Amino acid sequence: MVENCILDSINSPEDIKKLSLESLNKLCFEIRKKIIEVVSKNGGHLASNLGVVELTVALHKVFDCPKDQLVWDVGHQSYTHKILTGRLKQLDSIRKEGGLAGFTRRNESIFDPFSSGHGSTSISAAFGLLNAKYLKNEQGKVVAIIGDGALSGGLAYEGINNAGAYKKNFIVVLNDNKMSISTNVGSMARYLSTIRTRNLYLKTKSAVDKALNNVPILGYAARKLILKSTSTVKSLVYNGTVFESLGFMYYGPVDGHNLSELIKVLQVAKDKDRPVLVHVKTVKGKGYTFAEKNPKIFHGISRFDIKTGEHGISLGDFSSKFGMEICKLAENDQRICAITAAMKMGTGLAEFSEKFKDRFFDVGIAEGHAVTFAGGLAAGGMLPVFAVYSTFLQRSYDQIIHDAALQKLKVVLAIDRAGIVGEDGETHQGILDVSFLNSIPNVEIYSPSFFDEIGIMLKKAIYESENVVAVRYPRGAEMYKPTDFICSEKPFDIYGDFLNCENLIVTYGRLFSQACLAKESLSLKGVNVCILKLNKIKPIEKDAVLFAKQFKNVFFFEESMLTGGVGESFNYELSCINFNGTFHLTAIENKFVAQATVMASLQKLSLDALSMEKIIIEKVG
Amino acid sequence: MVENCILDSINSPEDIKKLSLESLNKLCFEIRKKIIEVVSKNGGHLASNLGVVELTVALHKVFDCPKDQLVWDVGHQSYTHKILTGRLKQLDSIRKEGGLAGFTRRNESIFDPFSSGHGSTSISAAFGLLNAKYLKNEQGKVVAIIGDGALSGGLAYEGINNAGAYKKNFIVVLNDNKMSISTNVGSMARYLSTIRTRNLYLKTKSAVDKALNNVPILGYAARKLILKSTSTVKSLVYNGTVFESLGFMYYGPVDGHNLSELIKVLQVAKDKDRPVLVHVKTVKGKGYTFAEKNPKIFHGISRFDIKTGEHGISLGDFSSKFGMEICKLAENDQRICAITAAMKMGTGLAEFSEKFKDRFFDVGIAEGHAVTFAGGLAAGGMLPVFAVYSTFLQRSYDQIIHDAALQKLKVVLAIDRAGIVGEDGETHQGILDVSFLNSIPNVEIYSPSFFDEIGIMLKKAIYESENVVAVRYPRGAEMYKPTDFICSEKPFDIYGDFLNCENLIVTYGRLFSQACLAKESLSLKGVNVCILKLNKIKPIEKDAVLFAKQFKNVFFFEESMLTGGVGESFNYELSCINFNGTFHLTAIENKFVAQATVMASLQKLSLDALSMEKIIIEKVG
Repeated sequence: MVENCILDSINSPEDIKKLSLESLNKLCFEIRKKIIEVVSKNGGHLASNLGVVELTVALHKVFDCPKDQLVWDVGHQSYTHKILTGRLKQLDSIRKEGGLAGFTRRNESIFDPFSSGHGSTSISAAFGLLNAKYLKNEQGKVVAIIGDGALSGGLAYEGINNAGAYKKNFIVVLNDNKMSISTNVGSMARYLSTIRTRNLYLKTKSAVDKALNNVPILGYAARKLILKSTSTVKSLVYNGTVFESLGFMYYGPVDGHNLSELIKVLQVAKDKDRPVLVHVKTVKGKGYTFAEKNPKIFHGISRFDIKTGEHGISLGDFSSKFGMEICKLAENDQRICAITAAMKMGTGLAEFSEKFKDRFFDVGIAEGHAVTFAGGLAAGGMLPVFAVYSTFLQRSYDQIIHDAALQKLKVVLAIDRAGIVGEDGETHQGILDVSFLNSIPNVEIYSPSFFDEIGIMLKKAIYESENVVAVRYPRGAEMYKPTDFICSEKPFDIYGDFLNCENLIVTYGRLFSQACLAKESLSLKGVNVCILKLNKIKPIEKDAVLFAKQFKNVFFFEESMLTGGVGESFNYELSCINFNGTFHLTAIENKFVAQATVMASLQKLSLDALSMEKIIIEKVG
Repeated sequence: MVENCILDSINSPEDIKKLSLESLNKLCFEIRKKIIEVVSKNGGHLASNLGVVELTVALHKVFDCPKDQLVWDVGHQSYTHKILTGRLKQLDSIRKEGGLAGFTRRNESIFDPFSSGHGSTSISAAFGLLNAKYLKNEQGKVVAIIGDGALSGGLAYEGINNAGAYKKNFIVVLNDNKMSISTNVGSMARYLSTIRTRNLYLKTKSAVDKALNNVPILGYAARKLILKSTSTVKSLVYNGTVFESLGFMYYGPVDGHNLSELIKVLQVAKDKDRPVLVHVKTVKGKGYTFAEKNPKIFHGISRFDIKTGEHGISLGDFSSKFGMEICKLAENDQRICAITAAMKMGTGLAEFSEKFKDRFFDVGIAEGHAVTFAGGLAAGGMLPVFAVYSTFLQRSYDQIIHDAALQKLKVVLAIDRAGIVGEDGETHQGILDVSFLNSIPNVEIYSPSFFDEIGIMLKKAIYESENVVAVRYPRGAEMYKPTDFICSEKPFDIYGDFLNCENLIVTYGRLFSQACLAKESLSLKGVNVCILKLNKIKPIEKDAVLFAKQFKNVFFFEESMLTGGVGESFNYELSCINFNGTFHLTAIENKFVAQATVMASLQKLSLDALSMEKIIIEKVG
């Protein structure tokens, strides 16, 4: 098409160096168009990408990648970066099986020096890359680009604290759009909003400088008085921002959609021999009205209609079901609190946040704090429920141990996106929580398979346990549920005729649906199997193991890591009671799981109904 | 004794309320004496405790505990708090089996509202406790007391970011002694040292106030010029510290050994209706010359002579052995870097830090950052080795996954204090690293039993693996080594005569020493056992499993959690190759391990030689 004449000519960042400002602005327009087009088809992160088009172009204009290195925090805003670094033609494949990742990825391009996905990592990683350059006497700058949302994560602060004492050039670009996924929270966000309103901070500073030192209207005595009586005034003025106090020169705020200003300030930053923070103000969703107006909705989105902004409405998912259930419980129990780490919408807590304002806590992207804070609430007699994606709960690992389990504090973990998550891919899979929680003492785990079970299990978690207790459920909707299966309150269910049955499937969570399909299909082939559905997966009920012992062949299927999972524990329990049959475990074996649809992934992992059937047929003939 | 007349009369914090300033100062003297006495006998944290005697007395003078709640960060500085809250008589039992904990502990006293051990947790926990009070309409203040060292941890920042947006009273006392365990590092530490030198900040501020607004010498026009041309000056002066920018009123710096000043400022802080940070300057080791002069040595110490300050010298331990070996390797390979999270001495890196200044990184108490930073170094072509205590590595869990393993970055983890650690007790046990690393893809683990093996395994870790690779070793010295055992480079060793032997012990790490003792003793009783010593515990060598398959009885001993450990995996591997014998696994079953000597703990866990012997005899008769 005629309109994309500039974009189509860009094969590497080199190609934009020679473009005029006008052409660069035109390029930005074309990039936005392309991104909207692709995301409307594939789904993905839209608003965050539209916000950094000019910033990305400016970065590639000023820096020489890959000699210079850009480290994108989270990485879901890296589409422009991908487009400019030779991946335009593959962009249509983004987030699809075998296609480009939705984040930066080291093995995807030499222009991605570090992989991303989780928030707040960029400063630490970039500072490591920079030190490597220095130690190897290599040329080149390293730039971390981090959002104000990710800045609420403690890891970002640890990085700033370490890098701020550095004596050479290091650049952090703060992409401040006042949002994480929802509106950003916390005192750092509030602070940023105060410095956002300063008009050209640099100019201001030099004015202060003049006022204090040079302007004749201030008499010598007055200046002396101020400077002497207040040895701090000068340092206060010069260390005007938190970032300057923490060792970074501060430049900004800069209009993130003004290419010429961006290029100028990045050029200045590039030449300093100290750590520099460039504060860039961007508008999330910039250039696409629907996204600007509703950046939350267009943060991460499934396919939508470009012209109307209309997008599919979810037909119910575990998250919203959880949200309903916790509201019901909180209605009748003033002690119940809900905590989110910047994921109010995603975890289904919108209603709760409105109905129970006082008992709702959005702590920012700060999963570690979320758990310790929950520990404090529990120690104070409340019933805190931390709703969090499985992959992000990894960041609370020590806090679960040290600030909850060890103290036997009843912290409830509502673990969303447990299991395979689909297109977000390997950084976001929820395949480790079972293993890491399994080995922590004083932790119990429930695993509902169906919507109806969330209410039951959440209630049991809150009222029947004295320990840290997790309820883990998958992303999206429930899968197949046989009409004759009735959700129970029991720690395990037996489904199928077990008399004279030699083959047992043991599983939990949504794989029960796959097991039921396999059972039905096998039955048509004359193979009788019974299913043991674990509802509480830690601790494993002795009776469940005793039940399994009667079978000749036990097939355990688990949508989680094999090592440290429930299957290994179950096998050990069986061996302790001298089980004589065979035990066959299918789970994720020592590898990460790449992006694909959930069903495609389950098939690849031999965890779908057909694979189950095949595995069983192979064994029993 | 006559001298302790005041201390002996204190049974609860109430008792100090009525004391005069003079008596309180005398009390401080007596408390110091008591602490020095007890630590000289029991070992423990000395310098940090001596630094906060006046601060603790002032806190209990001003606040009404347990209605008000004090949350001590780390908690190793809580001895004075324990003394003042009715635990004086038990102080002699501190850090001993069944005695007082070396940290605060919820189940020890109503005056310990939250348990501690790891750093940087206090603000989050205290803020949780405070919100619980508010939601329950309970009276009382909550105070978090955190050191400048712990302030380098991201969790502390997450807490500040969350609490700084609070609209009611919340108090953080910053106990600034310029140290974590060693000298504190990072830009926050540097920043604190600049504000430490401000003389009475409060006074300064009012002087600025005057200078800008009231002093006639400053003409109206001048004031107007400053205030107008620089809309930020005022806010800069008033938001003079990072903490004020982050929503906390700032008071300080206050002399932490001046009781009257401390009491005054805490009283002021108590009455504010906003979050307040009180910056207290203390001297680590205050009042005991040897400790003041050498706070690093007297941070945590074993028994010492009060008069001379002399203390036992270690007869060699795994940490120093590791330190020697990494220096040897770094001598010949410029790519090797060493990273510590404020534990240079403890992890044996002192020599490295001097010999290879450029390649040594102390990142502060920031284990998450340490791993992501290591990931950056590795991505940049270096060979980073992060030396860290097992218990603190828990804080890097997500970073190991996301910023190293997932990207197949060669980050070497030198895991110190792996296994039972002794007197530091449950918060510090290294009993989870095997389980949590075991389930992460692209991770390998070595487990040396003897000093000689550290060098071998570290070298293999650095040069023979493409993955994240851990070398884990216990606290202290090596245990018994049979004269006929020779350390090998193999992934596993077989020790003993396996021909015609029915009984196999499988184990790794220092338990191999216990197994050898058990073997010798059993042999005298006519029971022949062979030992399979795993050197590489992940992945498990197929040949090791095949070897084990030949035996009738396999006894697996593991100084780590049972669930998710190597034993369960080994059992599963055996079941996959149709092992017909019995498998008996002894490991730590779903519980935390309390403080006691290492040997006492091993006995309790049935992991010492005698227990091994008993277990085997029971089985084989």
